[in-house]
Amino acid sequence: MTSTKKLNKITEKIHSWIANDQIPKATDRFLELHPADQAEVFNNLEDQAQAQILDHLDIASTADLFDELEDEETLEAAENLSLERLADVLDEMDPDEAADLLGDLPPEQAEEALAQMEDPDDVIPLLGYPDETAGGRMTTAYIALRPQTTAETAIQFLRDISLDNDVPYYLFVVDRNKSLIGVTGIRELVVAHPKTIMDAIMDPDVIFISADADQEEAALLMTRYDLSALPVVNENKQLIGVITHDDILDVLEDEATEDIYRLASVSDTDLEPNSTVKDQMKGRLPWLLLNSLTSLFAAWVISNFGDLFIQVAVLAFFQSVVAGLGGSAASQDVVMVVRAIALGKINTDHAWSIFFRQLWIGFLQGAIIGMMVGLGVGMWQNNPFLGLVLGLSLVGNMIVAAMVGTLIPLLLKYLNQDPALASSVLVTAATDAIGFLIYLSLASIFLPYIQHYFSF
Amino acid sequence: MTSTKKLNKITEKIHSWIANDQIPKATDRFLELHPADQAEVFNNLEDQAQAQILDHLDIASTADLFDELEDEETLEAAENLSLERLADVLDEMDPDEAADLLGDLPPEQAEEALAQMEDPDDVIPLLGYPDETAGGRMTTAYIALRPQTTAETAIQFLRDISLDNDVPYYLFVVDRNKSLIGVTGIRELVVAHPKTIMDAIMDPDVIFISADADQEEAALLMTRYDLSALPVVNENKQLIGVITHDDILDVLEDEATEDIYRLASVSDTDLEPNSTVKDQMKGRLPWLLLNSLTSLFAAWVISNFGDLFIQVAVLAFFQSVVAGLGGSAASQDVVMVVRAIALGKINTDHAWSIFFRQLWIGFLQGAIIGMMVGLGVGMWQNNPFLGLVLGLSLVGNMIVAAMVGTLIPLLLKYLNQDPALASSVLVTAATDAIGFLIYLSLASIFLPYIQHYFSF
Repeated sequence: MTSTKKLNKITEKIHSWIANDQIPKATDRFLELHPADQAEVFNNLEDQAQAQILDHLDIASTADLFDELEDEETLEAAENLSLERLADVLDEMDPDEAADLLGDLPPEQAEEALAQMEDPDDVIPLLGYPDETAGGRMTTAYIALRPQTTAETAIQFLRDISLDNDVPYYLFVVDRNKSLIGVTGIRELVVAHPKTIMDAIMDPDVIFISADADQEEAALLMTRYDLSALPVVNENKQLIGVITHDDILDVLEDEATEDIYRLASVSDTDLEPNSTVKDQMKGRLPWLLLNSLTSLFAAWVISNFGDLFIQVAVLAFFQSVVAGLGGSAASQDVVMVVRAIALGKINTDHAWSIFFRQLWIGFLQGAIIGMMVGLGVGMWQNNPFLGLVLGLSLVGNMIVAAMVGTLIPLLLKYLNQDPALASSVLVTAATDAIGFLIYLSLASIFLPYIQHYFSF
Repeated sequence: MTSTKKLNKITEKIHSWIANDQIPKATDRFLELHPADQAEVFNNLEDQAQAQILDHLDIASTADLFDELEDEETLEAAENLSLERLADVLDEMDPDEAADLLGDLPPEQAEEALAQMEDPDDVIPLLGYPDETAGGRMTTAYIALRPQTTAETAIQFLRDISLDNDVPYYLFVVDRNKSLIGVTGIRELVVAHPKTIMDAIMDPDVIFISADADQEEAALLMTRYDLSALPVVNENKQLIGVITHDDILDVLEDEATEDIYRLASVSDTDLEPNSTVKDQMKGRLPWLLLNSLTSLFAAWVISNFGDLFIQVAVLAFFQSVVAGLGGSAASQDVVMVVRAIALGKINTDHAWSIFFRQLWIGFLQGAIIGMMVGLGVGMWQNNPFLGLVLGLSLVGNMIVAAMVGTLIPLLLKYLNQDPALASSVLVTAATDAIGFLIYLSLASIFLPYIQHYFSF
């Protein structure tokens, strides 16, 4: 383990060694790090320094490093390697990471690399699945046994195969058709009598997932049932791979980031404050452009009440209060619904009961906020009718907020879209425009009374 | 595995059996479910039905169910049990879950239950750590061996102890002071020569965490280094517990929920759309009240320019465009910074370089949006100076948005507060008030020109 501070120091040292052309020294220190830390240091190096380090790594170390790098970083680094070397590294990489890299390479280069690999059989079955599916997250590095195998044979088998750290601690049992029929653990193997057969110690009630299911579903299953590995089957229920606990941690982080980003209208999940200006603009500007349109629409709503402001300028002060509070209340509803859906806590069957409860809460919150703000502004501006209009508008817009904040994500889920797309831009577009409409309509109705008071 | 639909059907059946007083039938079907599914069904039952089911469960099944229930649900269910039965159940529960329950019980009841437990030694060491620390998440159910122990002795030891499913597949090696000196896996044990000692097969470079560290730090370590178990040590580096992969999944989900909720100004992480009206109001209303104050402050800013609207009512149409787009841009910055901090990708050392990059992006986005909206509105209202004022205000407010959106979470982190507290309410309070100020100040300056055009 290396703390961030210590790691920063080591990175600086490695940087300066490379800058002074002391590449072997830099490489030696680099290799002492955990591959996860190597990946971080490697990322912080200039392109040329990366190439120099790569030149000094053997195949196995390169494979370990590539396993830890993010997909795009691996792709960039792979461009420094000859085709032959690349094929060797691919052979040594985790099958699922190798498949990801092959999927990212230009098609001809991928084909040539695959052709030069010694043992492409682990990787080929993984190439057909999209990244975000269970098939895209699984590895083929798992252990499958037959039901009649004895514990002692199984242990001998474990001794014989070269053990990869990423092989999970589960052993799967398959029948002659490769169909998954049970699961057991290495621990059960160890404590069993040597002559016991798998059929006797396996748990036949094995939890699995279909290869084309969404990775989020895999994460939900593994979280719900506390699994450290989840077998993946094809349409014939044949075992074709395994998703391991570390993959699921990545899925959970990715999905949470995706939700948070979408809710705040950032469309590219890979964006960080460190991302290039160009990448950030690509993921952010389109939403702001959309927001320009929605806010101009809201401005158009206001423009229909233009005369009001000439008569009672003070009305212009408070329209944003109505719109803003509606937006805040709506985003509270949105996150609760989005998160409950993401964690599998609600489905669209309960939509109506949730909807009415949230509507009631919207009314209650609106009544409390409306009363306080209405009274406060009524006294501040010495105009009870202005306060009344503001208070009633707040009640109305809070109910609207509960409606859109609850219904839009549920509707998106019902349409099989990501509920998190009910981002602030879309939901507040509704609470803004409707909020202005309610407030200015009520103001028009009460205009004579409001004016009457101001004329004192 | 049980799909949601199937589970809903089973739940309905169990419900109706209980309603018809066919409790044994209901209990039998209930027990066929995976404990995680039992927990879901149990949750959906009325209080009385829960008590009836509990009456028919044996100690072990009750413990399994309690292990799976959420903390508050376990507490509620525990109130149905006699003290004696509760002590028996606590003995059977996972030590970390039992410790959580004991911590939630009223102090006298917890003491009495602890006194009646047969084997409280697993639980007692866990009682002292706050829920959200590494110590609060760890379990004492782990296996520690001495460096001179042989593989065959270790395997015999594994056979002798009663194996709990939740014991992780790691074996830790400790010296005579109980200090952690290495780690190995059951798999390494199995493939090693029977006479090999632990010292020879263990990895001395073991990653661990201190018991008082935040659970989020534990999650970061386990994610970064792909660990399925993380040993926890006390201040003397003595091994005192282990955090397992399933706990870390819960931590990641909790932390993501907390971030999302805080960003949308919902303060209680346990809230769901199903939560009671009272609970929801408690977690939501205070933020809306705060938002009332911030939006009234923004209204006060506008009120200082009251005369403007009488002279040029059209100005009132577009103030929300400036404020709203600033708010959207700021929340984009906030989520990227908050997420990068949460995933350990930035620390406050890089604060300034991130700040200036985000500022530059704010300017660029402001320039593009400002140009388009300014041109559009200038043509719509046939008033180039209104367009100019609007465009310049958008540039200004986007720069403000980048400033507050980046600095507030970084500042919170620097002050050791949760960066996600830079919620929409606080950040948009700034972009609203400053946005209005910029727009209306510029409008005052350009007022003669704007009026000149309208007088055509």
